[in-house]
Amino acid sequence: MNRGKLYVVSAPSGCGKGSILSEVLKNNKNLFYSVSATTRSPREGEVNGVNYYFVSLEEFKREIESEGMLEYAEFCGNFYGTPKKKVMEKLEQGFDVILEIETVGAMKIKKAMKDAILIFILPPSVSELRRRLNKRGTEEESVIDKRINEAVDEIKKAVYYDYVMMNDELEKAIKDFEAILKVSKLTIENNRNLIEEVLKNA
Amino acid sequence: MNRGKLYVVSAPSGCGKGSILSEVLKNNKNLFYSVSATTRSPREGEVNGVNYYFVSLEEFKREIESEGMLEYAEFCGNFYGTPKKKVMEKLEQGFDVILEIETVGAMKIKKAMKDAILIFILPPSVSELRRRLNKRGTEEESVIDKRINEAVDEIKKAVYYDYVMMNDELEKAIKDFEAILKVSKLTIENNRNLIEEVLKNA
Repeated sequence: MNRGKLYVVSAPSGCGKGSILSEVLKNNKNLFYSVSATTRSPREGEVNGVNYYFVSLEEFKREIESEGMLEYAEFCGNFYGTPKKKVMEKLEQGFDVILEIETVGAMKIKKAMKDAILIFILPPSVSELRRRLNKRGTEEESVIDKRINEAVDEIKKAVYYDYVMMNDELEKAIKDFEAILKVSKLTIENNRNLIEEVLKNA
Repeated sequence: MNRGKLYVVSAPSGCGKGSILSEVLKNNKNLFYSVSATTRSPREGEVNGVNYYFVSLEEFKREIESEGMLEYAEFCGNFYGTPKKKVMEKLEQGFDVILEIETVGAMKIKKAMKDAILIFILPPSVSELRRRLNKRGTEEESVIDKRINEAVDEIKKAVYYDYVMMNDELEKAIKDFEAILKVSKLTIENNRNLIEEVLKNA
């Protein structure tokens, strides 16, 4: 059995990353979604172990010190990180693992794990992204401006990813994503054993 | 518009390469199938310009001398090669091009064109390949033995390809092939312009 593959997915808020991933996870039972840990408080409706592992600052720092985090970063005074143990276990068991993290974390993962596959999901345009964020109607104009600025900074980092795909149509985006998963299994690196197997008893 | 991609496909005889390619070409109108040139005589039913360009040895040698062949090789006293001009034209026009050639030619292409994508189609096993060749019932046992030996030699070269896919089920193999085509368009190398486009007017 081959070791699983690690996929790192980033996208600015409003790119439909959640819709893509939930469909992809439903269709691909061999995929394990890695839940991040955070020191921020749960928002209404968020469930511990589903949206995040909500931990104290002390716990988080202890994990960092014992090298229990694959990557972590601080945003707005809160820590966010990827607990290492579960990810490694799943990969060893042959499961593929998805990390949904921002670009700083993604770069750290790429450095630590060369064979990780980095996927960036683009919005059709920044103006479309603004339209989507406005449509939600949940946030002030100034907050949206801030999110747009962050999005632009994130999108600039897309050049460091392995793949970029645009979510201009959800069905297409899901197919693109699943094609990346499929093709990452067809690389020669993944199939040396298969070739030997085919040649056996030749 | 991006330049087209060059795909090189190899598979031993009996791997169902023809069935896969004819379906893929039907579904993907942006794909151009490069017809090889050969000095061998047409077999019954073979059409000039469809199966091969049937040319004289003099013509073939003239093409080699004028660097008109992207790759060529000699087998059993006959020359086979890929006419360069049409392939280059199509790539420039943004079409993707498929070369269906054996491993020696594939290696030459990879050397000359680093961004060519090499795909090897595996049979489920060598014994299954033998079963398929026997089933055709058109060839003597000794000819089948020879083909199997050639197949084994070809399969050993699969390790130099970018992707290997097994044709154990035609539908699956077609999907695998089309996923490789799709994903080769999602690489970062192919999408730097797209990222700039998204950021425009940000």
